[in-house]
Amino acid sequence: MRVLGIDCGSERTGFGVVESDGRRHQLVISGVIRTSPKDPFAHRIGIIGRRLRDILTEHQPEEAAVEEVFHAANTKTAIKLAHVRGAVFFVLGETGMHVGEYSALTVKSNVVGYGRAEKQQVQMMLRSMLGQDTVFESEDASDALAVAICHATHRSTELRIAGSSMGAVR
Amino acid sequence: MRVLGIDCGSERTGFGVVESDGRRHQLVISGVIRTSPKDPFAHRIGIIGRRLRDILTEHQPEEAAVEEVFHAANTKTAIKLAHVRGAVFFVLGETGMHVGEYSALTVKSNVVGYGRAEKQQVQMMLRSMLGQDTVFESEDASDALAVAICHATHRSTELRIAGSSMGAVR
Repeated sequence: MRVLGIDCGSERTGFGVVESDGRRHQLVISGVIRTSPKDPFAHRIGIIGRRLRDILTEHQPEEAAVEEVFHAANTKTAIKLAHVRGAVFFVLGETGMHVGEYSALTVKSNVVGYGRAEKQQVQMMLRSMLGQDTVFESEDASDALAVAICHATHRSTELRIAGSSMGAVR
Repeated sequence: MRVLGIDCGSERTGFGVVESDGRRHQLVISGVIRTSPKDPFAHRIGIIGRRLRDILTEHQPEEAAVEEVFHAANTKTAIKLAHVRGAVFFVLGETGMHVGEYSALTVKSNVVGYGRAEKQQVQMMLRSMLGQDTVFESEDASDALAVAICHATHRSTELRIAGSSMGAVR
């Protein structure tokens, strides 16, 4: 199964696509969509949504996963982030694909085995999964890949329980 | 100038289109996009965005205006609302149209002449502008029309200052 993970942000939105059977994962692409704080906010939302649409067209993920909003964060930041997430959900929704949502805690627990892991620990674990030579454009990109892998393992279990099989990277 | 006003909400998003020269306003259409709290939130965002796109195609507004988020509101509500606004901005942004943002205070000051006006006072004033037989599907619809009219008057002044003229309802 090919999964797109997204780590939303108004300045930097990380994305990562992996091909996975739920246990073994292959990196397809990862990167960061950057927007300038100097541009009008609505314009920046447009850039993020359109770039995301390009990624969907180019890399054809079957499912997607997004990190949940951290409500305890600064309200103004959370509200900005929610605008970006709204546009991201809309663009993902247009494809009709299944979209998962996971808290940062769940993602880290799943990938590192420890919910309060540092970003560097996440990157270290991702390298052991995807290859030691994996380069992350930034922590936003590695966080997005972690969300994608978290979703792939969750869905793999769900689908196995449902008696389905995932046709990838066997 | 044909202006679309939008009053975002996760359960009810009001919309209203007016044809205006900045002083006289004609109602084109108004209504409410409703989504069910029982549906997944991402799905509801999709419904709102797609319905908005239909309204744009059908009624061809030249500009749009959206009410600003009221930051002091309940954080959870504000974050939900921000998701809807993100999708709305994305869909409006795809058209390349000018999008204005106004606080509820500015809208009421502009339409009623009093920033703390009640919703009924807004409706009363809208009827005196758009015709006494105007029916509002709900307060979300009338609020959206008020935002549209607020934008039309603002832009009319702006464009007059810039030496342009607005070719409508003379």
